[in-house]
Amino acid sequence: MASKKRPTACVLIIGNEILSGRTQDVNLNFLATNFTELGVELVEARVIGDVEAAIIHAVNECRELYNYVFTTGGIGPTHDDITAGCVAKAFGVELEQNPVARDLIGELCRRNGVELNAARLRMANVPVGASLIENSVSGAPGFQMGNVFVLAGVPRIMRDMFDGCRARLAGGDVVQSRTVTAYLPEGIVAEPLRVLQEQCPDVEMGSYPFYQEGRFGTNLVLRSTNEALLSRACNEIRDMVKELGGDPEVHES
Amino acid sequence: MASKKRPTACVLIIGNEILSGRTQDVNLNFLATNFTELGVELVEARVIGDVEAAIIHAVNECRELYNYVFTTGGIGPTHDDITAGCVAKAFGVELEQNPVARDLIGELCRRNGVELNAARLRMANVPVGASLIENSVSGAPGFQMGNVFVLAGVPRIMRDMFDGCRARLAGGDVVQSRTVTAYLPEGIVAEPLRVLQEQCPDVEMGSYPFYQEGRFGTNLVLRSTNEALLSRACNEIRDMVKELGGDPEVHES
Repeated sequence: MASKKRPTACVLIIGNEILSGRTQDVNLNFLATNFTELGVELVEARVIGDVEAAIIHAVNECRELYNYVFTTGGIGPTHDDITAGCVAKAFGVELEQNPVARDLIGELCRRNGVELNAARLRMANVPVGASLIENSVSGAPGFQMGNVFVLAGVPRIMRDMFDGCRARLAGGDVVQSRTVTAYLPEGIVAEPLRVLQEQCPDVEMGSYPFYQEGRFGTNLVLRSTNEALLSRACNEIRDMVKELGGDPEVHES
Repeated sequence: MASKKRPTACVLIIGNEILSGRTQDVNLNFLATNFTELGVELVEARVIGDVEAAIIHAVNECRELYNYVFTTGGIGPTHDDITAGCVAKAFGVELEQNPVARDLIGELCRRNGVELNAARLRMANVPVGASLIENSVSGAPGFQMGNVFVLAGVPRIMRDMFDGCRARLAGGDVVQSRTVTAYLPEGIVAEPLRVLQEQCPDVEMGSYPFYQEGRFGTNLVLRSTNEALLSRACNEIRDMVKELGGDPEVHES
């Protein structure tokens, strides 16, 4: 099977509430999991505040470095929602009212019996040249500008928007993974694991210690786009753990 | 009261497992909350993989930009734990075995009846010039090199290490916060909130919509280092929400 290069991605989590500790981000984990399933390599994520210069800088740096940039947060109707304007500035274009977005927001307001006021209309402003990303939860759409995908910060809406633009992403080879759980401390598996990693450079081997129900252990996570190499490495790791008396359990991921 | 400038901080979350979606990070939220309490301003966080060039680049960029850099992850005994070596390279120094760290790890091994092998001894290697950060959970210490604090990735150990080096941080004015919960959609509060924000530039006003038990609402979060200004702004926001029929509830944070 021919190998299909994996496109790269970066996530920009925009919001003072994450940096103050008020909110625990859960969007990165959703996006990371989905990129893995799609064969997209998430190389980096950044959390930045609602600060114009910081957002513009991060958008411009990351859209050059990576195939895809996903932003979350800052596209609501209030004064602290500045992401759309910053993305426009990053691309050197104006914001303009998108008629389709305006109709979507107007329709939502009618349905909910609320006024289509100036604040709500602000959510129809997208950079010139952007295409919309549907929001079936609350109406106001996200948008795509070049390789930058601008999503909401509210997790339910962000997930809906991501599902709506998933088809626009070209995935590459999908990384498969297996976990071998070893009831052994990391210090015991470290040396034989290192040797196996050297023997199998195309299978990434990660080691994650845990403490659960009174037992110390280590999850050995194997990742590769090559199923055959992955299976072989998994068998070798399982044998290694067995030899060390570590009671191995193999899981699909 | 004289104002005490708030030092800035950046968190580097190091680990492929976060970027693959396998692990939901919880360390950032802990650190963010603690920085807020200490009067340290967390300006940025980055999630990067177990990749030497990426770690060195991020450490060097961020230690110039911010007063404090905290890293989490990558200081265990296995081959994928490369943070200490990368921090040494970022500072242009060698790794050396720290005798205190070696004794701590040796003591732990004796207590647990396990061998002090080469992999475990690797955890005693820190950059020349670093000072140790105690780990009372599992023995192997973290370290501080200049303004870079290198902590474990396992949350329980990371928290213990943070507590151990908290006294080394010079905090500034502490940002106090109040939340006014309004049972109103964001689109209604947006315009009067914008006006109030313009009138009170020293109180940061954030707006976070929610949907809970069948009710839409918006949390209006006010943040300031000035208690008097914060109280005044809080009263004004509460009055605004009352006027809009939004049934305001005020919370301490």
